[in-house]
Amino acid sequence: MSVQLDENGQLRHFLTTEGLDPALLTRILDTAESFSGVIGKSVKKVPLLRGRTVINLFFESSTRTRTTFELAAKRLSADVLNVSVDTTTTKGESLLDMLRNLQAMQADMFVIRHSQSGAAEYFARHVDPGVAVLNAGDGWHAHPTQAMLDAYTIRQHKGDFEQLRIAIVGDIAHSRVARSQIHAFNGLGAGEIRVVAPNTLLPGDIDSLGVQVYNDLGAGLRDADVVIALRLQRERMQGALLPGEAEYFRHYGLSEARLRSAHPQAIVMHPGPINRGVEIDSSLADGPRSVILEQVTNGIAVRMAVMSLVLGLQPETAREST
Amino acid sequence: MSVQLDENGQLRHFLTTEGLDPALLTRILDTAESFSGVIGKSVKKVPLLRGRTVINLFFESSTRTRTTFELAAKRLSADVLNVSVDTTTTKGESLLDMLRNLQAMQADMFVIRHSQSGAAEYFARHVDPGVAVLNAGDGWHAHPTQAMLDAYTIRQHKGDFEQLRIAIVGDIAHSRVARSQIHAFNGLGAGEIRVVAPNTLLPGDIDSLGVQVYNDLGAGLRDADVVIALRLQRERMQGALLPGEAEYFRHYGLSEARLRSAHPQAIVMHPGPINRGVEIDSSLADGPRSVILEQVTNGIAVRMAVMSLVLGLQPETAREST
Amino acid sequence: MSVQLDENGQLRHFLTTEGLDPALLTRILDTAESFSGVIGKSVKKVPLLRGRTVINLFFESSTRTRTTFELAAKRLSADVLNVSVDTTTTKGESLLDMLRNLQAMQADMFVIRHSQSGAAEYFARHVDPGVAVLNAGDGWHAHPTQAMLDAYTIRQHKGDFEQLRIAIVGDIAHSRVARSQIHAFNGLGAGEIRVVAPNTLLPGDIDSLGVQVYNDLGAGLRDADVVIALRLQRERMQGALLPGEAEYFRHYGLSEARLRSAHPQAIVMHPGPINRGVEIDSSLADGPRSVILEQVTNGIAVRMAVMSLVLGLQPETAREST
Repeated sequence: MSVQLDENGQLRHFLTTEGLDPALLTRILDTAESFSGVIGKSVKKVPLLRGRTVINLFFESSTRTRTTFELAAKRLSADVLNVSVDTTTTKGESLLDMLRNLQAMQADMFVIRHSQSGAAEYFARHVDPGVAVLNAGDGWHAHPTQAMLDAYTIRQHKGDFEQLRIAIVGDIAHSRVARSQIHAFNGLGAGEIRVVAPNTLLPGDIDSLGVQVYNDLGAGLRDADVVIALRLQRERMQGALLPGEAEYFRHYGLSEARLRSAHPQAIVMHPGPINRGVEIDSSLADGPRSVILEQVTNGIAVRMAVMSLVLGLQPETAREST
Repeated sequence: MSVQLDENGQLRHFLTTEGLDPALLTRILDTAESFSGVIGKSVKKVPLLRGRTVINLFFESSTRTRTTFELAAKRLSADVLNVSVDTTTTKGESLLDMLRNLQAMQADMFVIRHSQSGAAEYFARHVDPGVAVLNAGDGWHAHPTQAMLDAYTIRQHKGDFEQLRIAIVGDIAHSRVARSQIHAFNGLGAGEIRVVAPNTLLPGDIDSLGVQVYNDLGAGLRDADVVIALRLQRERMQGALLPGEAEYFRHYGLSEARLRSAHPQAIVMHPGPINRGVEIDSSLADGPRSVILEQVTNGIAVRMAVMSLVLGLQPETAREST
Repeated sequence: MSVQLDENGQLRHFLTTEGLDPALLTRILDTAESFSGVIGKSVKKVPLLRGRTVINLFFESSTRTRTTFELAAKRLSADVLNVSVDTTTTKGESLLDMLRNLQAMQADMFVIRHSQSGAAEYFARHVDPGVAVLNAGDGWHAHPTQAMLDAYTIRQHKGDFEQLRIAIVGDIAHSRVARSQIHAFNGLGAGEIRVVAPNTLLPGDIDSLGVQVYNDLGAGLRDADVVIALRLQRERMQGALLPGEAEYFRHYGLSEARLRSAHPQAIVMHPGPINRGVEIDSSLADGPRSVILEQVTNGIAVRMAVMSLVLGLQPETAREST
C-alpha cells in the first residue's frame, strides 16, 4: 500500500503521481479549479488553513518553487515558515531529529525539496499521524505538483485526455518533472504519451513507463496536441552526454518551424525557467501557442488544492474571508 | 507621458518624484497622515491590502529598506514575499523572465531595488496592467519614498514649504536620495533648495535641477530651516574624490557649532544609516534638533500611502481590523 | 533593581531567570498552560498580539530557536520580522543605531540572540518605554525561555518542585541553559539541584549557585527524579578540556543502564539538538523516559506566555480567532 494514501484511498501525503487512480487525480484538478476563481478575484485568501503551520523544508535551494508553495499556503491563511538546510553540514540520523523537532513545534505540513530521490517518502514514513508531507522535488524521482499543474493547464485548454497526443521533449533521464508528468498523464488516461530525446538522455527503465520513444523531433511532434519542452538541467548532466547547447537546439530545440508538424492548435509548455535558444526559441516561448506563464499561475491553485486535500479539508466549505 | 501615471494623472507606479505635480505630492503626504494615527495606536493594522501580494524584489541587499517596505505591507494586511536576487548570476532577458514568472504568481506589487538607474522604470514598462512597481532605489537615479518621507517630516515640523530654505549637504553626485528630494521639494514649492558640496561631489546636470549651489558649509547653512546631511556613500565613490573622512568632516560635517548660522529652529535630517563623526557629529545626531528617527517612523506611513495609492485604494474607507 | 521588572514587579523584559520570585516564575508557567490548550486544537491562533510587531534580531544564527520564537509570535497573531546581523561587519555604537532604527519602525518587541553575555540586557537598557526585549541566548550567560520550558515540562510530569531531585549532567561551565535552569529551579523551590560534571567543565562560581556538585555520574543520578543532559558545545570548548567524545560518553553519557540508579519514574530531558552517542544514548533519547520532544512543544506555549506578559497583555481575555 502506498504511504501517500490512507486506508480509504484518500490523499494523506503527496509524494508522487505514480499509481494514483484517475478519480484521485481528477479530484486534485477539480479542487484546484475551485480555487482558481479565488485567485482571479481581488481578495484571494480563503481561511481554510487558518491556524495551521506549513514548514517549507528546502535541502536544495529553489526560490521559484519555494515561492509558489509559500504563496499557496498564505492564500489558504496558513502560517508559513521557511527553513533552508545545508545538507553538507547535516547528515544521516540528525535529519530525522530535525524533522521530529520541527514536528514537535506542531507543524501541520512539511513541503520538502531534497537532492536525493526518496527523501520525501522517507520523511512521510516518519512523521506523526496528522502531519502531511508534500514533495517539492526529490532528486531525479518526482515533482508531483509540477506534473499536476501541467495536467491542469492541459485540461483547461484541451479538455478530455483520452484523445490527446502529448510529446515531452528533452532530457528525460535527469528529469523528475518528466517522470511525474508521464505517471500523471497515464493515470488521467492520455491517448498517447511520447518522449523525444537522444538515447543518451533516456532513462534505463523507459520501456516500462508506458510511452512511445522518438529520437527524431519531427516525427515525435507529428500531430501532437501538447508539446512540452524540458529544461536542460546542465548541472545534472554527468559527463559529456551532449555535444553542446547549439547542437542540442539544432536537434531538439523547439521553434515555430519545428511545430509545423504538430497539430495546428497544439499548445507549448515548459516547467521553467526557460533557457531561451537552447530548449526553446524565444518567439515560440513568447508566442500565442505558449501557455508557459499560465502554468505558473495554475501552480498556485494546484498547490492550494493539494495542501487542502492532504489535511482532509473541504474547499467547498471555505468561505471567503473579508 | 510618464509611465508612472495613468491617463487620469493618478499614480500607477512610484518610480521618481521628478515631474509630479503639487496636488499629487500633497495627496501622498495627506494619505500618509491618515495612516499615522494607525501607527500610533496599539492595533496598527488596516485591512486595505488584504489578499494582495507584495513582492520585495531586491537586486541590491538592504535589510533596512526592505524591512520598512515589509512592515508597511504587513500593516496593510498584504502577504509579503521577499526575493533576493544575485545579479552576478542572473542577467539580461532572464530578468524579464523572472519578472513575468513572479507576476504570473498573481503578484499585485513589486518593490524593486537595483544598482542600475532606470531598473524600476524598466520593470514598470513590462508589468501587466493592474500590477504596480515601487522604486526602492535604483542606482544614482531615484529613491522616491525616501524623499517623500523626508517631505512628510518637514511638513510635520515646518508646515508650508513656500517659506522654507532647505540645505542638502554632502555627496550630491552619487545620491539618489538627494535627486529625489530636490524634485519632491521643488514640486511642493519649496522657497529655496540649496546643495552644499565640493565641486567634485556635484552632478554634471546640477544647473538644471533648480537649486542654489554652495561650496562653503557656513554660507550654505545661513538661515536654513531644514538641514539634510547625506550619507557618505563610500562604496559608490569612484577613485579619489575626497581627501579622507576627517578632512570631509572638517569641511562638510554637521555639528552644533556649524548649525549656529542656520535658523534657530532649524531641524536636522539624515536618510540613515549615519556615519557618526563623518557627515554628522554624534551630539547633533542625538540632540533636540535631530528628527532622524522620526524620519524612520514616518517612512512606514509614507510607504503605506504609496502602496495604497498605486493600487487605487482609498484609505478613507479602510476600517480598522479587529 | 532589575532592569527586567517594572516598579510593580511585573515582567517588562525577559533577560534572565536569576532573581525572579516564585510567584512570577509560576505566573509564567500558568500563562503558558493557558496557551497549551490553544496549541492542541486545530485552530491555534489567538489575536492577543494582533497589530504588534516582533523583530527577531539574531547576531548568532540559530534556525531552531528563531523558528520557535517566530511560531510563538505568529500564533499570537503578531507580525514577525527576521533580521540576521553579521557581527563581523557591525560593531560598537552602530549596533545601538541599528536598534534605534528598528525601534523607530514601531517594533513592539525584540527577540535577541548574541554571542556576548549581557547583550540582551544592554539592549533592554536602551529601548524606549513600551518596547520589550526577550533574551534568546546571550553568550554563556542565560537562555531563560529554555529554562522556563524545562520547568514547564517538569511541572507537567512531576508537579510540585519541592520534593524533586534534579540532576543536570554535562558541560555546566559553557552552558547558558544550565545557568538559567539552576536559577529557575531554585526560584521555584526545587528540593535539590545537582550538577554532574568533571571539574574542568564546572564554572568558577559554582559554589554560589546553590547546587550539589558530583563528579561521578552514578552518584549524581542516585534517586534523581529529573535527569537533564546538556548538549556538548564543541564549538564553545576552548582547548583540550576533554579527552574525546567516546571518553566523555563513557563517563558522563546517559543510557538506560546508567539511569538504573535514578528514581524508577525519572524523566530524561535535553535542550536539543542531541548528539546521539555522545551525551545521550539513542535508545534512551527515543525511549519512554524521554520527554525531549515534549520540551520542544512546550517551548511554543512558554514563549507565547512570555511575549504576552512583557507587553502586559492578559491571555485570559484572549478570545480565539476563527
